[in-house]
Amino acid sequence: MNVLITGGAGFIGCHLTGALRSAGCGVVCADNLRLGGRERLEKHLSDPGFFFYETDICDERRLGEIFAAHSFDRVYHLAANSDIQHGGKDPSIDFHDTFLTTVSLLDTMRRHGVKEILFASTSAVYGDKREALREDAGDLRPISYYGAAKLASESFISAYAAMNGLRACVIRFPNVVGPRLTHGAVYDFIAKLKKDPAKLEILGDGKQEKPYIYVLDLVEAMLSMNYPEGMDIYNAGVETATTVRRIADIVCGEMGLANVEYRFTGGAAGWLGDVPKFQYDLSKIHALGWRAKHTSDEAVRLAARLSL
Amino acid sequence: MNVLITGGAGFIGCHLTGALRSAGCGVVCADNLRLGGRERLEKHLSDPGFFFYETDICDERRLGEIFAAHSFDRVYHLAANSDIQHGGKDPSIDFHDTFLTTVSLLDTMRRHGVKEILFASTSAVYGDKREALREDAGDLRPISYYGAAKLASESFISAYAAMNGLRACVIRFPNVVGPRLTHGAVYDFIAKLKKDPAKLEILGDGKQEKPYIYVLDLVEAMLSMNYPEGMDIYNAGVETATTVRRIADIVCGEMGLANVEYRFTGGAAGWLGDVPKFQYDLSKIHALGWRAKHTSDEAVRLAARLSL
Repeated sequence: MNVLITGGAGFIGCHLTGALRSAGCGVVCADNLRLGGRERLEKHLSDPGFFFYETDICDERRLGEIFAAHSFDRVYHLAANSDIQHGGKDPSIDFHDTFLTTVSLLDTMRRHGVKEILFASTSAVYGDKREALREDAGDLRPISYYGAAKLASESFISAYAAMNGLRACVIRFPNVVGPRLTHGAVYDFIAKLKKDPAKLEILGDGKQEKPYIYVLDLVEAMLSMNYPEGMDIYNAGVETATTVRRIADIVCGEMGLANVEYRFTGGAAGWLGDVPKFQYDLSKIHALGWRAKHTSDEAVRLAARLSL
Repeated sequence: MNVLITGGAGFIGCHLTGALRSAGCGVVCADNLRLGGRERLEKHLSDPGFFFYETDICDERRLGEIFAAHSFDRVYHLAANSDIQHGGKDPSIDFHDTFLTTVSLLDTMRRHGVKEILFASTSAVYGDKREALREDAGDLRPISYYGAAKLASESFISAYAAMNGLRACVIRFPNVVGPRLTHGAVYDFIAKLKKDPAKLEILGDGKQEKPYIYVLDLVEAMLSMNYPEGMDIYNAGVETATTVRRIADIVCGEMGLANVEYRFTGGAAGWLGDVPKFQYDLSKIHALGWRAKHTSDEAVRLAARLSL
């Protein structure tokens, strides 16, 4: 099977590339290298079953050339601005990187008759809700441009699927951690503590509490999906959750630091657009037979350890 | 109060303009005149409380000039490709006219500090569902590019509201009929029967059954809304519904034609992306005190009569 991975040089994309190559798939990665890095794919670059293109997915002409040069059975669409906080500073970031990439890709798939897509969506589509989130929950109210861009992407995938006979699998990711992180609390805390091991600034009140999934658990979920006609949606995650304060404790522990002074910026949310707490209902994806191997705390600890 | 109406020269926009001028509002209409027509606003053109700009809402530079020249208290965002069937032929139509217009407008509102918006959404966001549609229904799966573009617009409105303190009211319109229609079954049937009063081609099996609202009932609903902070969503419609075959009967009756031969193209849906049947739960908007004065059949009959 030949697949395209958009955002293939990103944090999740490079791990997915490795897993799909190990499974014997021909893999083409396309990435604008804005968040991703070519070095993440280094071990594949001389591999004859692997191709890399540096391109913006919004460049439909260039994307069309890639589709013409290869014959794709499926697309894994990961290209996005994955840094919600950064996207909050300028709505054009998520509009372009998170949303327009999807429409450009869908239209290129339509023109080239490629029917199968896995889309990396997000818990942020739900907005700020307290109940355990089910995939069929109503009243989705994203509070960040990132969440809006992902939900808008899902909307267009739904219509393209109905109009063009696509088989689309949407997975709503929670926070994802592991080696080769590009941003997020684990990444930030390590960077800050390397600069100054005596104190640590923590955004919000530290009580934000979310499920963190280990990246290889998520990659395994991505390889376990089915593709019936239409669009199907799954939460992928873990049943446990980790507070931001606990992440700080874990990172300090892994770095061998004690008595670090925590300075909280205050407020329930880390930044405007941050959803401070959520929990998934995972019964739908568990019924497929997949289950994450690491708890949220274990995922954070492993990510911290392997990022040092 | 000064308001901007995007799509102000369209079918609904011109009726809304009249109602808002009667209520004493300063009204600025912006319209690219692709579906709308300047003649629809003729009686307002010499009115000092009314301004008309011919512009595409996606032209952010031009839109910014209009915002700079006026001080808007609220925007009624109606600009869209309102012809779902036409939009099915080329996804770029609804992407540009129905979706990009919204993002362009939201960003212009953000830059100029305009906080209040009424957005004309649609039943098409729900996709093909059989139960009475509630605003908080889950699993929204649009099957047309038009429905996707409207749901994607709602997503971005939600995020812009949260990030910028907007007060957004979303009304999901059903089929709307009345004088000055630009498309749809009533419009098509009249056009076809004027050409050939002996026979009538009807798309689908004629059993498609939807609620039709009279345009002035809908305008009254639009004037009855509240604008608390955040985004609120309302269905507006009627509790009755009319089949496509019944529309044909009503139009023939109003035209004084008997024994017209109906030729059905067949199939449950009129075209790819058509939702053949739906019904709204209207309890939320009825609780505001608004209720449509005309049934669906009455709306269709009145629209046909006034369009001849």
